[in-house]
Amino acid sequence: MGKVAVLGAGSWGTALAIVLADNGHEVGLWAHRKELADEINEKRTNDKYLQGISIPEQIVADIELSAVVKDADDIILVVPTKAIREVCQNLNQVIDRKVTITHASKGIEPETYKRVSEIVREEMAEELYDDVVVLSGPSHAEEVSLRQPTTVTVSAERLEVAERVQDLFINRQFRVYTSPDIVGVELGGALKNIIALGAGISDGLGYGDNAKAALITRGLAEIARLGTSMGANPLTFSGLTGIGDLIVTCTSSHSRNWRAGYKLGQGHDLEEVLEQMGMVVEGVRTTKAAYQLSQTQKVEMPITGGIYRILFDSEDPRDVVDQLMTRIRRHEMEDLTNILDEHMNE
Amino acid sequence: MGKVAVLGAGSWGTALAIVLADNGHEVGLWAHRKELADEINEKRTNDKYLQGISIPEQIVADIELSAVVKDADDIILVVPTKAIREVCQNLNQVIDRKVTITHASKGIEPETYKRVSEIVREEMAEELYDDVVVLSGPSHAEEVSLRQPTTVTVSAERLEVAERVQDLFINRQFRVYTSPDIVGVELGGALKNIIALGAGISDGLGYGDNAKAALITRGLAEIARLGTSMGANPLTFSGLTGIGDLIVTCTSSHSRNWRAGYKLGQGHDLEEVLEQMGMVVEGVRTTKAAYQLSQTQKVEMPITGGIYRILFDSEDPRDVVDQLMTRIRRHEMEDLTNILDEHMNE
Repeated sequence: MGKVAVLGAGSWGTALAIVLADNGHEVGLWAHRKELADEINEKRTNDKYLQGISIPEQIVADIELSAVVKDADDIILVVPTKAIREVCQNLNQVIDRKVTITHASKGIEPETYKRVSEIVREEMAEELYDDVVVLSGPSHAEEVSLRQPTTVTVSAERLEVAERVQDLFINRQFRVYTSPDIVGVELGGALKNIIALGAGISDGLGYGDNAKAALITRGLAEIARLGTSMGANPLTFSGLTGIGDLIVTCTSSHSRNWRAGYKLGQGHDLEEVLEQMGMVVEGVRTTKAAYQLSQTQKVEMPITGGIYRILFDSEDPRDVVDQLMTRIRRHEMEDLTNILDEHMNE
Repeated sequence: MGKVAVLGAGSWGTALAIVLADNGHEVGLWAHRKELADEINEKRTNDKYLQGISIPEQIVADIELSAVVKDADDIILVVPTKAIREVCQNLNQVIDRKVTITHASKGIEPETYKRVSEIVREEMAEELYDDVVVLSGPSHAEEVSLRQPTTVTVSAERLEVAERVQDLFINRQFRVYTSPDIVGVELGGALKNIIALGAGISDGLGYGDNAKAALITRGLAEIARLGTSMGANPLTFSGLTGIGDLIVTCTSSHSRNWRAGYKLGQGHDLEEVLEQMGMVVEGVRTTKAAYQLSQTQKVEMPITGGIYRILFDSEDPRDVVDQLMTRIRRHEMEDLTNILDEHMNE
């Protein structure tokens, strides 16, 4: 079993490192802060991000990127989307062999509208990697670290590389599927965070499960519409990395995007919320990117537009939800059929 | 505003009667038991089914079917699927004009595999109704009676009849869409109860949100596959009466199908569970019907098959879930693509 380097020692990075260690791999885990690396190596815990979990001995944390990637054939990127460019630039300096890059980050870059795999390809020296793989799906890190049953999807341009990464991670509890639709898998994971913010807002306003289910359903239709306009297969949004991830994110208070939305619904403004959270909330930047994209792609996205106005124009959440609920469209199929038509006409 | 007859004074029938009363209609509400009719008329409550809700004066409850349907142009059927045939036979004797029949029941008949609108058409004298409408969607009765925002879909063979029923129910909080796909709307509402049982079983076994999201996602794919083989539009399963209703039913302890599944997951057998519930659990009969259908239609339904074995063959829930999680299929798209292919090849 080869060595794997996991970059990012937050909850998801640590949970993925645990899966790899369970499968017999030696794992280098890159942490940002010396105290965290020491805690992982000495106490075998990461209490800020995965409380109460014991970290296997095969995982060695370090703050030096070069030490972490040394001898590794696989690099797993689990850093915020915002940090991807810088981390890739640094990787160019320290990688000592041709690697496979797998990322598990869920975002889109504002202004450029790039997906994470596109950013990685832009920044990394071409001769240093064979392919870029995305790993995504309905997966609370806490449950993965407790070895609870979990399913995820991996996708890459080259199927055989995706299958190698599938073999790296798969075990009895952690089930890994492959998909040929990297665009859809990346966009589903990123865009679902917008709807998670919306679900949190609805809950924060005191609305019930009926309203939230409507918002999730209509929200999924509009992210599928945007995704399809960008080349994704609309069916991907009905799979684990679409609906599956959306359900987990929208119905659990574990989710930080949901939590941020909840506080917005209760009347706090964005700056306050982000300060209180003290963690990256990917959905905020993704809402901006998707809103800009919906304009350039001319895709109708009323829910995303409403959340954008709550986030960046301080519009009252109650007014936005009321507007969304009383929109005039009478025939549900008009919206849904559009998605398929667009795809079939390509 | 004309009079509307609502048949069935359970939680959903009473909640729909409240919506109609809010919209200014006189409502006759058919109750099975004299004590319940008296409670509704005298105390203005229905505490067994909608605790703490005050029932508007325009609603008059009665145990005599003839009194309830007298002068009504619209009849709303909200009785268990099992009782539909008998109620329709009785309606033939007492209706005094041509009516529109709308039903809000979610089931399929075992052995005949009939949808509720098909059963109504079989039993009702043809000259007594203009069309049969289905009303379905993500809607806890409790929230509707509290005037929380809610969306539902109505569908009928004749769009103009569906639109008339839409006008009957629609108001600021209760948003009603139309759909042309009556097969999909009825099947989505019925089949989702199978997956709700499964979600309850997973929770009852102590598994987490990741496992449940996987089950819901894969479950939706298989009910869409069965529905499409029976003539439904696969997109309907991505809408309010598909995913939307599924989310509400699978993530809330309000749902009696989820509750029944939860008890099964904790190790109780079916007979025990149904006795404890003391209410109709539509998903149990629907699982039987769908399982039989999957055999005759030759549609692969591993989750439905697993739930069938738990319900009727006393197979251990943990073994079934373990089998489902470790199935060999490696490529997620194989399953999803099948659905669309089948639809497009029709």
